[in-house]
Amino acid sequence: MSDALILTLSCPDRPGITANVTGFLFEHGCNILEAQQFNDRESDAFFMRIAFNPAGASAEALRAGFAAFALRQEMDWKIASRSRPRRVMLMVSKFDHCLASLLYRWRIGELAMDPVAIVSNHPREAISHTDIGDVPFHHLPITRDTKDEQEAQVRAIADETDAELIVLARYMQILSDRQAAYFSGRCINIHHSFLPGFKGAKPYHQAHARGVKMIGATAHYVTTDLDEGPIIHQDAESISHADSPDDLVRKGRDIENRVLAEAVRLHLEERVLLNGQRTVVFKG
Amino acid sequence: MSDALILTLSCPDRPGITANVTGFLFEHGCNILEAQQFNDRESDAFFMRIAFNPAGASAEALRAGFAAFALRQEMDWKIASRSRPRRVMLMVSKFDHCLASLLYRWRIGELAMDPVAIVSNHPREAISHTDIGDVPFHHLPITRDTKDEQEAQVRAIADETDAELIVLARYMQILSDRQAAYFSGRCINIHHSFLPGFKGAKPYHQAHARGVKMIGATAHYVTTDLDEGPIIHQDAESISHADSPDDLVRKGRDIENRVLAEAVRLHLEERVLLNGQRTVVFKG
Amino acid sequence: MSDALILTLSCPDRPGITANVTGFLFEHGCNILEAQQFNDRESDAFFMRIAFNPAGASAEALRAGFAAFALRQEMDWKIASRSRPRRVMLMVSKFDHCLASLLYRWRIGELAMDPVAIVSNHPREAISHTDIGDVPFHHLPITRDTKDEQEAQVRAIADETDAELIVLARYMQILSDRQAAYFSGRCINIHHSFLPGFKGAKPYHQAHARGVKMIGATAHYVTTDLDEGPIIHQDAESISHADSPDDLVRKGRDIENRVLAEAVRLHLEERVLLNGQRTVVFKG
Amino acid sequence: MSDALILTLSCPDRPGITANVTGFLFEHGCNILEAQQFNDRESDAFFMRIAFNPAGASAEALRAGFAAFALRQEMDWKIASRSRPRRVMLMVSKFDHCLASLLYRWRIGELAMDPVAIVSNHPREAISHTDIGDVPFHHLPITRDTKDEQEAQVRAIADETDAELIVLARYMQILSDRQAAYFSGRCINIHHSFLPGFKGAKPYHQAHARGVKMIGATAHYVTTDLDEGPIIHQDAESISHADSPDDLVRKGRDIENRVLAEAVRLHLEERVLLNGQRTVVFKG
Repeated sequence: MSDALILTLSCPDRPGITANVTGFLFEHGCNILEAQQFNDRESDAFFMRIAFNPAGASAEALRAGFAAFALRQEMDWKIASRSRPRRVMLMVSKFDHCLASLLYRWRIGELAMDPVAIVSNHPREAISHTDIGDVPFHHLPITRDTKDEQEAQVRAIADETDAELIVLARYMQILSDRQAAYFSGRCINIHHSFLPGFKGAKPYHQAHARGVKMIGATAHYVTTDLDEGPIIHQDAESISHADSPDDLVRKGRDIENRVLAEAVRLHLEERVLLNGQRTVVFKG
Repeated sequence: MSDALILTLSCPDRPGITANVTGFLFEHGCNILEAQQFNDRESDAFFMRIAFNPAGASAEALRAGFAAFALRQEMDWKIASRSRPRRVMLMVSKFDHCLASLLYRWRIGELAMDPVAIVSNHPREAISHTDIGDVPFHHLPITRDTKDEQEAQVRAIADETDAELIVLARYMQILSDRQAAYFSGRCINIHHSFLPGFKGAKPYHQAHARGVKMIGATAHYVTTDLDEGPIIHQDAESISHADSPDDLVRKGRDIENRVLAEAVRLHLEERVLLNGQRTVVFKG
Repeated sequence: MSDALILTLSCPDRPGITANVTGFLFEHGCNILEAQQFNDRESDAFFMRIAFNPAGASAEALRAGFAAFALRQEMDWKIASRSRPRRVMLMVSKFDHCLASLLYRWRIGELAMDPVAIVSNHPREAISHTDIGDVPFHHLPITRDTKDEQEAQVRAIADETDAELIVLARYMQILSDRQAAYFSGRCINIHHSFLPGFKGAKPYHQAHARGVKMIGATAHYVTTDLDEGPIIHQDAESISHADSPDDLVRKGRDIENRVLAEAVRLHLEERVLLNGQRTVVFKG
Repeated sequence: MSDALILTLSCPDRPGITANVTGFLFEHGCNILEAQQFNDRESDAFFMRIAFNPAGASAEALRAGFAAFALRQEMDWKIASRSRPRRVMLMVSKFDHCLASLLYRWRIGELAMDPVAIVSNHPREAISHTDIGDVPFHHLPITRDTKDEQEAQVRAIADETDAELIVLARYMQILSDRQAAYFSGRCINIHHSFLPGFKGAKPYHQAHARGVKMIGATAHYVTTDLDEGPIIHQDAESISHADSPDDLVRKGRDIENRVLAEAVRLHLEERVLLNGQRTVVFKG
């Protein structure tokens, strides 16, 4: 049996798109397994994700056939394998809870990824709590003076490993605009979120000082607009006056873990489509 | 501009259904506003909900045209107006928080319903906290001996008012099998839910005695299988050892309110499709 | 049997406070029903709430006896009746969902309050969905030019009715610094909260435009620092790309309702103590 | 500086207990860091947890002094070190997500425990995804015929290692009544929880077949009453019709992880007191 494929597309909303797209698949003998669409009434944009069994048709033939049609509709589109693990580069600093969580989920088959590199600005010993197995580890220290050079090295590793996704798993360095642009659309970051928000260092301590009653985390695509890229997933939970800053950090770890892992899973399964500054997330 | 319509359907899953259905709408000049589908891989069943602008086409003409096609596909289907308020009969006993909440939501336009009757086994004074406005109130007391007769009266009111939906808004009487069958698929009940569950009277007191750390509520369609009908919506929240049974009852009211209101909204917007003992809920 | 009392206090943390306070109550024959304390390690401040049965002792005698002791400990303290309803002034503009919810909770006995006045900058018809019963309604329109005068009228009503608590139940006017200071510590506001936050008008539309995946609400004491007063309670829930701004407004209503009602309940039950810019909330 | 201590106690509720207990600590020069109490109005039982700085006093001297007083009050009590890691035996079968999560939390200092043994009815290879480091691993296979013998071996390991807590981290064997009794009060189990509940094998598949809209997990003390011991912590989250049984299993892992870890943390910090079939949990 041939492997299932995933078609994702976005385009201006016009009558007949669903009929045409699903008609195309039907004519090529494909069988739809899962389909979701979203008509954005405000921007008049259309988004679709279809997982389908191609039957006899090859992915290449389908791509070739779809291309002409897609061109007329001004579509952004992609036909990808559903089961092929995506090559992922993981970046981390001193706190390795997100890294450990992602690697464990990968090992038990929860995340269909192929970790091609772990990059850290700290040496291997800094994340000694995490079993990274055979995944190549790259220690690329960074200072204000060496930032350009270090980022070039990061790009080189991403290029050499053909990384399809870069996950900033608590990588505590701000990417330059150039770097953010280079990884645009394929780089996911996790950061704390609070009501209200806090800028600057030690956000959990700031949140504690402010006396918030909830803390949360946001996973988003990295753009040149720091921490303001399209949001993929968020979660939050209640805290109380009795929670110390350390308690908040501890609770924050759990929220960060699950929010980042969920965002990575959604991305790997081609469930996240960009809609300007926002995302369409077909959760399934 | 003509009013938007909603097509809902379920049928055995076969290649081409989406293409055929959306093709049909396209040929008739209809413009899709919102569409969702679900392919149940286990039962090989297909479910779809499409909100669309019929352009020039009349609902009647579309229904006539769709019927032949639907027959061949063994479809359960329906084409309904999106904006027409559904006629709803509300049933209540002594606790009126769900009733008050539903009526308020109706008044501010949150629920597109037309409350055609309020039926209670208690007199009007029992729910004196609720402003029922001009909605006709029917006091139909019930005893073991008069249950058959009372239920016949309830059916009569439902028939006379052409009630499309019956909401048991904390109506504390168990419907007979006959009554449950009569209202099958159009009667929503709310009940408390706990981990683990409790049978019998005073469930919040039982939950307190057991020492559970969460309480919840379930809205479901009424079937002849008591409290076991297809689930539409559920929610739960944390409690602590310091919560008395009264605290649980208070917290339970809030959960019941929002779970029932959400289930009613989903039903009124034709977002709930039956899938055997289960539901497919297209949340939008 | 005499009515239960509630002692709340805060003071610098010193050895023996708990022993001294509970010893005082024991010597006066009082029986503790519920007690909570919090030692803030950072500010070295101590907070306590004790609900107790005074047995034979009168509240006045206890207050007199406690005063000398409290003075030596630099305490902020209060001995209040547990069951006496607090006099509450409710302020509202055009959206009356929070008002309706508070009044319903009061009627069924969930909130131990005595609503002494409803003040609105809009006429009675603006909140026609809400049954305000016999609660006096005051229409006090406001313009830029009449703001001083209107606020003086509001203060006059608060004074005449001896209002102990002012609830801004979606009152869409910004209080002047003078007004905020006048009601300091006894005025609760509700506002939307988002991750990240948004300033200015139409916040739900801004949140939708930003593509957030959660919305929430915050209840806080009003201070001269707009929307930045000590937070009493917060809650949030998940949304999706398919939620329109109207959907967010609808979901926001539910969150605002329950967050404000909970904050009011906590305040009425003397469960909220100020800790600088923050609160200590003894949830029970 | 001497190490902080934790006093936990429960006894019949009588006037003056708080005054006497805190007076005792005050007289011995101890400084309270954190204190919580609960008066169970139904059972007239009193519960208290006090973390305190003993200043010059030794734990032994305090215990000796407290014993006489405690005897008169019919107290169950304990004075324990706050920082000493508790010796913990971890039991696991084939699914190691809870084990991996607990060990990671231990390594980064989140759980103050000393893992003295890992016991599994499967060989080491079954949990190859987990880095168990130097923690001794014991493979103790079990069959119907060898259950008595295997359980004796488990008890022997617990005795030899002086295990203070036994955590069933997805150990898929039902303990005999004898074993449950032997570990009574010091053995925590995690199991799935649903609304409604399901008995028997493959619960996530049953939940899917029933069409529930929420799944959850419960951590509880093991008693001879299977899955019915005193509940320590619970959590739940929403699911949809589109979640396959595999999706439920995946989501269940996350809930199980955090619920079990939280229950273990609460126990290790002496925050859980037994109240008959229930628990009093002083969350801090």
